[in-house]
Amino acid sequence: MSHLTLALDAMGGDHGPSITVPAAVQALQSHPNLHIQLFGQEQKLSYALNQISLGDLEDRIQIVHAPDVVDMRDKPSYALRHRRESSMRLALNAVSDGAADACVSAGNTGALMSMAKFVLKTLPGIERPALVAALPTQVGKKVHMLDLGANINCDSETLFQFAQMGHVLVQQVEGIERPRVALLNIGEEETKGNDQIKQTAQLLQECDDIHFVGYIEGRDIFTGNVDVVVCDGFVGNVCLKTCEGVSEFIIKEFKQRFKPKGWMRLILPFVLPTLSRMMKGMNPDQYNGASLLGLRGIVVKSHGNADLKAFRHAIDEAVIEMERQVPKRIKDQLEAALLDKHS
Amino acid sequence: MSHLTLALDAMGGDHGPSITVPAAVQALQSHPNLHIQLFGQEQKLSYALNQISLGDLEDRIQIVHAPDVVDMRDKPSYALRHRRESSMRLALNAVSDGAADACVSAGNTGALMSMAKFVLKTLPGIERPALVAALPTQVGKKVHMLDLGANINCDSETLFQFAQMGHVLVQQVEGIERPRVALLNIGEEETKGNDQIKQTAQLLQECDDIHFVGYIEGRDIFTGNVDVVVCDGFVGNVCLKTCEGVSEFIIKEFKQRFKPKGWMRLILPFVLPTLSRMMKGMNPDQYNGASLLGLRGIVVKSHGNADLKAFRHAIDEAVIEMERQVPKRIKDQLEAALLDKHS
Repeated sequence: MSHLTLALDAMGGDHGPSITVPAAVQALQSHPNLHIQLFGQEQKLSYALNQISLGDLEDRIQIVHAPDVVDMRDKPSYALRHRRESSMRLALNAVSDGAADACVSAGNTGALMSMAKFVLKTLPGIERPALVAALPTQVGKKVHMLDLGANINCDSETLFQFAQMGHVLVQQVEGIERPRVALLNIGEEETKGNDQIKQTAQLLQECDDIHFVGYIEGRDIFTGNVDVVVCDGFVGNVCLKTCEGVSEFIIKEFKQRFKPKGWMRLILPFVLPTLSRMMKGMNPDQYNGASLLGLRGIVVKSHGNADLKAFRHAIDEAVIEMERQVPKRIKDQLEAALLDKHS
Repeated sequence: MSHLTLALDAMGGDHGPSITVPAAVQALQSHPNLHIQLFGQEQKLSYALNQISLGDLEDRIQIVHAPDVVDMRDKPSYALRHRRESSMRLALNAVSDGAADACVSAGNTGALMSMAKFVLKTLPGIERPALVAALPTQVGKKVHMLDLGANINCDSETLFQFAQMGHVLVQQVEGIERPRVALLNIGEEETKGNDQIKQTAQLLQECDDIHFVGYIEGRDIFTGNVDVVVCDGFVGNVCLKTCEGVSEFIIKEFKQRFKPKGWMRLILPFVLPTLSRMMKGMNPDQYNGASLLGLRGIVVKSHGNADLKAFRHAIDEAVIEMERQVPKRIKDQLEAALLDKHS
C-alpha cells in the first residue's frame, strides 16, 4: 500500500487544534498508510499533541510551523494577499509542491477556495473549482450534489463540467460504475427550465460517457433515484442551506410540540437523538466535509463548527480521494470528452 | 358586510367535484357573506351537490355549466387556445367580467397561470404574475415566499416588484403593518450574490415604504425573523420542492429507523401524526394553496392532489384576499412607488 500524505490546516475552524489534532491522531489509527503534516503555530500544536499518547503513531505525524492564521472574517482577496504565512496557505503549498497529496481545512470557505485556486490551479479547461457534498437518500445510499456555492453564474459548459466531475467522483469514491447524473430543474418535462439548463441537458444527452437521467425537481433529490445532482452554485447553496433550515425547524418544532404534553414528553429522549442524527445528514458541509473539485490537487473543506467526528469525516473523505486519485481521474475524463468532441 | 362571490373551478384537481363541492359547502358555512359559483359539467356538479343537505345555503351556491375541462397534461399554450369552454377558463372569465371577485382552482398550474394572465391581465407595470405561498417558522408565524416558479429569469426590477407585492400581501392578509422583507441569497454579506440580487438590494434600500432587512440564506427562511422572502422563480421552486423532499425523507427515514426496534416501534403511533402534521406545513402548495399575485383579480391555486381540508384552505385564502382587496392594494403600492421614483 503506498504512503498517503495529508496536509492538515490544524488552526482552521472554530475550535482549532483541540479538534483537529485529536481527529488527525484518530485518522492515523484507522489508516495505516496515512502520514499527516499538521500546519499551524508550533507551540499550540505541540501542546495539543502532548495531550495524546501517540505510541508508534509518532513517526507518521509531524508539525510544520505556520506563524499566521486565516481569520473567519477575512475576505478571500485579503486572505490571498496577506495570509501567505498562514496554516491554510502553507498546507496548500505543500500539496502544490508535492510534499502532500491532499489538504483538509475547517477554515474560512471563501479564503480556501481562492487560495486553493491560486496555489493549486484548476485542471485544464476548468474555470473555477466546484464545491460538492453528499446528502442522504431514502434508500440509504448517498447523493452527491454540486455546485454548492463556489460558482454563482454558470453557463451550460460549466454545468456540463460539473456533471463530468460529479460522475468521476461518485465512480471513484462510491464505486458506482455508471452513476446516474441528473440536472436540477423546476419540472421534469423537457420544456422546463432556463436556457443554460436546456443546453446542458443537450450536452449531456450527446455525451456517451455519462449516464444522464434527465431533470429532477428539488423533491427528488432524496429519493435515491439519482447519484449526482448538478446545479449552479446559487441554487445549490440555497438548496443545501434550506435543507439545514428545515432540519433545524423540525428539531425545534418537535421539542415544542412534545414538551408540554404531560407523559408524551417522556418520548422525547427516545426520539430526539434519532431525529438529530437524521438531521445531521441534511447538513453535509457541517458533518461530512465538502470537496473542492476541478483543482490539480485534493482539497476537502470541513465546517468551521465541525466537532471531532465531523472533522474525522473530512479527513476520511480526503483519504478516499487520495487513494482513488480523483483529480487525475477527472482530468482523464475531461480530456477524453474533449477528444470525443473533436473526433 | 358586503357580498363576496367566488368562482370555483369545480372540475380541477385529481379528485374533482368529490372534493371541490363539499369544500365549497363548508366554506359557505364559515363565511356568511360568501357566494360560490361552481364551474363545471352540470350533471356531475348537481350529483355532488345532491349528496349534501344544503338547507338555506342553497341560495348562495350556483352551478355554471362548463362543457370542457383542462387536462393535467395540457401544455399552457394548448389550454389557452383550445380550452375556452373549460371550467377553469369560464371561472376566470367570471372574475374578468366582474361576476365574481376571485377564482380558486386545483387544476393544471401552467394552464392556470397562462389563462389568468390572458383573461385577467397583469396590473400596470407587472410583466408576469408571481406565485406566493406561506411556510411555517420556528416562532409559529408564517413566512411568505415568492416567486415559487412562475418567473424563471428575473431582473432586479421584477424582484423589486415581488418585494412590493409580498409586502402588500402580508400587510393585508397577516395584518402586519411593517412586514420584514428579505432577499434570498447565498450569504448575508453585502458582497455576496449575483448582479440582479445586488441591484435589487439597492432598489429596496432606497424604497422607504418597504422594511428591507437585507439578505438571508436558505437556513434562515424558517427562523421567523422575516415575513417575506423574495427570490426568482427558479430558486423559489427548487427551494420549495426541496422542503417537500426533506419532509418526505424524514417521515420515511423515521419509520425505517423505529420500525425494527422492538418496543421502540410502539412510539411510532404517538410521534408520526405530529411529525406528519409538521411536514404538511413544508408542502404549502399542497396544503395551503398558493396565490397568483400581480393580476387584476384574485386567483388562488390549490394543489392537484388537495384533499378537502387543503382545498378549504385555498378557498379561505381567497376569501381573505377578497375582503382585503389585495390586487387593489398592490396596484396602489406600485403606483405610489412609481410616483416616488418620479418625484
